[in-house]
Order: sequence, then C-alpha cells, then structure tokens
Amino acid sequence: MSITRHLSEFAAETPTSRIPASALRMMQLSFLDWAAVGIAGRDEPVSRITRDMVLDEGGHPRASLIGHDARVPPRAAALSNGTTSHALDYDDTHFAHIGHPSVAVIPAALAVAEDLGADGAALQTAALIGVEASIRIGVWLGRSHYQTGFHQTATAGAFGAGLAAARLMGLDAQGCAMVLGLLATRASGLKSQFGTMGKPFNAGLAAANGVEAASLVARGFVANAEALESAQGFGPTHAGEKISSGLEGIGQEWLFESISHKFHACCHGLHAVLEAGLSLAPLDAGTIARIEVTTHPRWMTVCNQIAPMTGLGAKFSYGTVLAMQVLGHDTAVLDSYSDAVCADPAVQALRARVHVTADDSVAETATRLRVVLHDGTAHEATHDLNAPMTLEARQSKIQTKARSLLGDQRADAIWSLIAAQADAATFAATLK
Amino acid sequence: MSITRHLSEFAAETPTSRIPASALRMMQLSFLDWAAVGIAGRDEPVSRITRDMVLDEGGHPRASLIGHDARVPPRAAALSNGTTSHALDYDDTHFAHIGHPSVAVIPAALAVAEDLGADGAALQTAALIGVEASIRIGVWLGRSHYQTGFHQTATAGAFGAGLAAARLMGLDAQGCAMVLGLLATRASGLKSQFGTMGKPFNAGLAAANGVEAASLVARGFVANAEALESAQGFGPTHAGEKISSGLEGIGQEWLFESISHKFHACCHGLHAVLEAGLSLAPLDAGTIARIEVTTHPRWMTVCNQIAPMTGLGAKFSYGTVLAMQVLGHDTAVLDSYSDAVCADPAVQALRARVHVTADDSVAETATRLRVVLHDGTAHEATHDLNAPMTLEARQSKIQTKARSLLGDQRADAIWSLIAAQADAATFAATLK
Repeated sequence: MSITRHLSEFAAETPTSRIPASALRMMQLSFLDWAAVGIAGRDEPVSRITRDMVLDEGGHPRASLIGHDARVPPRAAALSNGTTSHALDYDDTHFAHIGHPSVAVIPAALAVAEDLGADGAALQTAALIGVEASIRIGVWLGRSHYQTGFHQTATAGAFGAGLAAARLMGLDAQGCAMVLGLLATRASGLKSQFGTMGKPFNAGLAAANGVEAASLVARGFVANAEALESAQGFGPTHAGEKISSGLEGIGQEWLFESISHKFHACCHGLHAVLEAGLSLAPLDAGTIARIEVTTHPRWMTVCNQIAPMTGLGAKFSYGTVLAMQVLGHDTAVLDSYSDAVCADPAVQALRARVHVTADDSVAETATRLRVVLHDGTAHEATHDLNAPMTLEARQSKIQTKARSLLGDQRADAIWSLIAAQADAATFAATLK
Repeated sequence: MSITRHLSEFAAETPTSRIPASALRMMQLSFLDWAAVGIAGRDEPVSRITRDMVLDEGGHPRASLIGHDARVPPRAAALSNGTTSHALDYDDTHFAHIGHPSVAVIPAALAVAEDLGADGAALQTAALIGVEASIRIGVWLGRSHYQTGFHQTATAGAFGAGLAAARLMGLDAQGCAMVLGLLATRASGLKSQFGTMGKPFNAGLAAANGVEAASLVARGFVANAEALESAQGFGPTHAGEKISSGLEGIGQEWLFESISHKFHACCHGLHAVLEAGLSLAPLDAGTIARIEVTTHPRWMTVCNQIAPMTGLGAKFSYGTVLAMQVLGHDTAVLDSYSDAVCADPAVQALRARVHVTADDSVAETATRLRVVLHDGTAHEATHDLNAPMTLEARQSKIQTKARSLLGDQRADAIWSLIAAQADAATFAATLK
C-alpha cells in the first residue's frame, strides 16, 4: 500500500474508540505543554510581528489567538499560533521525526475545531492523528531530508497539520489523499533559518499550510493526490529517503508515545545532564571539587560555551547550567537565564570546575555526570532522554513546568479543561 | 557580489528614471495580457474554489479580486488572483526563466499597490523589477531545478513577487535581502501538479508568499538574509545550479524584454507552427494534398495527438489546430477548442493529411511548415517563437487577443488605463 493511502486511511478511518488511552493522555499532556510555552512566548518579537500581520488583515472572528483577545480566520490563527508556540523553542520534540510535532499540528487542529464548534474529544483525537502522521512522514523522509537542510517541523509538520484539519472537516480517505497531494506543492521550510525568527515561523507556516490545503480540498480542489511520493513528488524532490518502515504498524503502534518534553529552558543538548543532576541528592557548592560531564561529540560545538556572559549564552553552556542547578536556580524558568547569573561570582567559580569530555559511545540523548567532592567522594548519575517515564511522572513534570511559566492558577485551570476534554472554543479562549 | 545583494540593490535602488521605455512598454503589454487571461479565467473551478476560500475568510477590504466585487486583504488577493490568472495557462512565458513570470508577480504588486494607494508608475515599475528578478533567479536556479521537479513559476516567482512588494513598501536593500531570506524558507512548488488545479495554484502561492514576506519584514521580521544562496539555503537544497551569469548585467539589460506571449489558446508547443501558418496566404482546404510539420522531438509526446475527440485533446494536436486554422476557426479563442470541432468531418478530413516529423536540429521554440497542394505546388514557412517582434506588432497581437477574450470595449478600456498609468486602485477595479 502506498504511504499516501496508509496515511489517508489512518486519518479518515481510525475510530476514536481504537485510540489507546495512553496515547490520548500523552496528547493531552502535550496540549498542556503547548499551551504553556505558547502563552509564555506571546510577547516574543516574532510572535508580535506575525500576530500583528494577521490582526491587520482582519477577517471573520472564528479562531482564537494566543496572547490576544481578537479572533481571526482559522488559516491566520494557525499561522500566528504556530509561530508563537515555537517562539521560545521550549515545546515538545520527537527524535525519530527529527522535529517538533505539536507546534505544527495543534494550532491547525485547534483553529479548525474552534471554527467548526468541535468537542474536546474530536479536537484531541484529530491532533493526535496529525502528530502521529507527521512523525511517520518525518521518519519516511529520513535523516537525509534533514541533513540536506530541510526542517521536518515545517515539512512533515504541514502534512500532519493538513490531516488533522481534514479529519475535523470529515474528509474521507480520498479527500485526505488530496490534502497530502496539495501539500506536496505547498510544504516548505529550511534549517538555515535556525537562530532567526524564521525558525518559529516554520512551525506557523506548517500549521497554516495544513489548514489551507484541507479548506481547499473540502471545497472541491483537485490536486495530484499522489504527489507526496510520486515521481517528482515531495519526497523525491526533497531528498526523502522513503523509509517505508516509517509506516509500519500505523494505527496499532503510536510513535507519539515516545515524544520528549523539555523541562529546562535551554538547549536540548543540556537536558540529559540536568536530569542526571536532579537525580542526585542536593549538593552544597562549597563541597564540590570537580564536575565531570561525558557527552556525545555532536554537542561539543553546540552547547559547551565555557564562560558565556549573556542569558542566551547560558542556554548553551554545560558549566553554567550545572552551576545554576547546584546553586538553586530553577532551570525550567525562562528568566533564570540572565546576564546577571553569568556575572555572579558563585556561578563563575563553580562553572570553572566543570569539565566536559566527548565520547561517541554515549548516545546523543544521554549524558554521564560525575561530581567529585573535596573529601574525595564521588556521586555519579547518567540520564538518557529516551528513558521511559510513567505518564504520572511526566504529568507531574509538565504541570510543574506549566505552573512555573503561567502561575499555578492559570496552569491548573488549563489542565482541567484539557483533562475534561472541554470543547475547542472553551479551551481556545484560555489562550488569550 | 552575492546574488542576494545584486537582487536587493536592484530592487531597492534602481531609479525609475533609469528604466528603458521599451522594458516598461513590454511590462504594460504583459499587464494587458495578464488582465485579459485573468478575467477570462475567473469562472474556472480552481479560480472559484480559491476565491471562495478567501472570501469566506473575509478581512479588511484593501485589494481587488479578479471576478468579484468584494475586496480582501492583499495577501489573500494575491493568492486568489495569482491562481485565477494562471487558470487558463494562457499567460506569458519566459523560456530562460522556465516559467510564467507575470502570474506570480503582478498579483502581488497589484495587491500591495492598491492597498498603499500607489500610482500607476510605481505599480508598473515594481512589477517590472519583480518579473525581471524572478527571471534572473529562474536562470540562476537553472534547468536542474526544473528537471528535478520544481516549478520556477512558483519558486523563482515567489522571490520576484516579494521584491515587487518590498519595492512598493519602500524597503531598502537590507530589507529586500531579508525578504529574499525569509522567502527561502517559504517558497515552494512542484511540477508534479501539472494537469491538476495545483498548477495554477502554484502561481497563487508564489504571489501570496511574496506579499506575506514583505509584510513581515516591513514589521521588523528578522530571517537569515543570506538563505537564498547560503549553505543549506534555497538554491543548494532545491537542486539549484547557481548559474552566476543569471545576474550579469542586471539593471542594464532587461531579460523581461524577451518575454513570450501566447496568441493561441492551446499548448505552447503548437504556437510556432500556427504562427508559420499565419504567415502563409490563406489556403482553401480543398486544394491541400498534404501538410508537413517538422518539430523538435520533445513535442512529439506532448502535443501530437492524432485524432482527439475532445476540446481539451484538440489543444494538444498539431493536425487538429492546423485544420482549424485553415478552416477559419480562431485559434486565439478559448471556445474554438470544442468536442464539436473534433467531430467536424471537414476538420477530420484535413487533419488526416497532416504529417508530423521530429528533427532535433529544429529549436524547441521553432517549427517548419510545408503545405503541398494537389497541383504540386508547395508553400513553406518556418517560425521561431524567439524571433524578434516589434513592440507595435506585439501590442497589436495582444490587443487582438484581449478583445477576443473580453470584447472590444472592455479590452480597450483596460488598455487605456494601463497605457495612461492609471493609479493602482483604478486599474484593479476593472478586474471585477
């Protein structure tokens, strides 16, 4: 069966009753995570610029915006909310997909669901199907797609966003195939935007492309329904590896269940060592002689700044984040990463004692931590971000993150709506 | 100098006074051609679907739509009008760019110009700069980009549309570079949509992308301003050949002056032989023993249907279009290509006497025609679409085409506005 047919039947025909409770709960946790990082990012410059553009266009008030009380057409809301929710780069990641599924798919699903008056179960199911499809397409496109320079968040994300929108609109499998085919000529997004506003915008354009394609197909648009994979289709023209195993078990096995959430507001390369640090008993900085970090070589050029002097630099520095952690700064809080913390003599003294070594026998998702005290004793811990975590533990961590970003009351109110599967309009209204 | 800098300085800094009158007049002729084929295509299904979507979104009424009296935001108008004006595939073509410059650029320029209240000179200059830039980028991307499966109309077109919009907004060279950089992550479009509504939509998305990128940059958006050409930028990731000669002489030499217009409502591969036929004295079908056509091999699989029975098939048939021409059917008129004409015994008898031979010494843009009469005399003519044509001759042919599509009165009224450089809003209002 072709990948298009696999994905189309999956999107159109998977009964809600066949979705495992564990996958749905993971989706709900990603909704909370997405809402928290989106609201926290509402005033970033890229968020304001993109939102101002769609507000200036106006249009029928059908879909809510993060960070503003006006409503706009669904395609515009998807563009703005996708961009806003990726602005902090603090959203969920799937390592096999090689990208950020929720920031592309949830904004598309939510905008369409709100417009159509969908209930919470329909919204969450559509989003789950969309993120699952985007992960499958990301795997199918493969590492060569990413290495060539394409950004799966944007490319695979658009296809997932389109299927989420199509499911909410009630398109059948043929309609879903048409959405994928139309998106083949519309999907785009390059990694060469990393480090600029173009990176979060890649999530916004994916979400908007998905809403647009589903809206057009629902009106009768006829595209090449095989253009995702056909000769000169999206995969072949975009360095896709066409890894057919990416589709195996779709609808039975849910790759989205291995999604990763960020619990520290810094480069993902630093998260494993911070988790390792959390697993040790609290240490007094004065007792520490030396901190040894062993990590995968790829991170050495990414996040091993030795003595950064800015908050942004701190987010890419093993020494600084470990010193912050020992000294009691909350690494989940955005404002913890500041110029002031870099200038703090206590941080400087401690980070000077951090030594980072590369070892390619360590997985990219793992890091070893060894803390040697002045009395000669050593504490060791290793963490792999791919290590299983119970849903309960994950929920607790995401709720803590959401509370630190939004305050307890707002975070808990949003979680209550998600857990109760409140209708789309009610949930969307909490994002203002 | 980098291509980005070349193009940005060209777009931002070319004084209107330095633009040759011949280039400007060619742009005016393409405005007329664009308006005629756009209005004639307003009720095509893809035009209705795309227009209905943006009408359903609503928004501040700032830019006119082809075929409707409502106005919409500029980005939406560009999407709808770009699609509509390419719906008939009867718009202008540039063989070096490998695509259709006007349908991507004019809708973007017009929507922004109308929104800003620009005068006719500013509109026409911005559009000319946009189409020229898109042709240069098309050449720079090269044949490998096209052969891989990308559609220059959509890809190079988006960059040209963005520069046209940027010039109207008054962005400086740095701003123009930022627009190109942002478009590197947004531009898309595949040839695998040919034969579906996706092909005209590729023009619409190019126009909309251009308006969007310029609007965001005007608000302060920061992208990677080198992403058109940088490592993992648009060219390298999209099989671009990076043909630097594509930029040579920009601002001095205007490649747009070698634009081609379609004067027959059929496949471009048939135009040279129809022009050759027009150069012969009118012939009586009853006197013709045999018609010999010699053409480039690439056309044999494109437009050599022997005995089509539908109007669509007639558009891809040497024999049918030549028979139509001899028998007095106007090949410039859309309705001439009908099932009825294919069923006409006179057409069938004559097309049976047409013999087509491939010869790779004939240019792709040329065709040889030889008509042998029953009395043994022969009439021969050869036409190359790249042959020079005076501006006066071209104007006359485009006016004839516009009159046949819109009626004399409407065609002449539109041309009067263009020639007088009427302001953008007045010109746009004639497209309803």
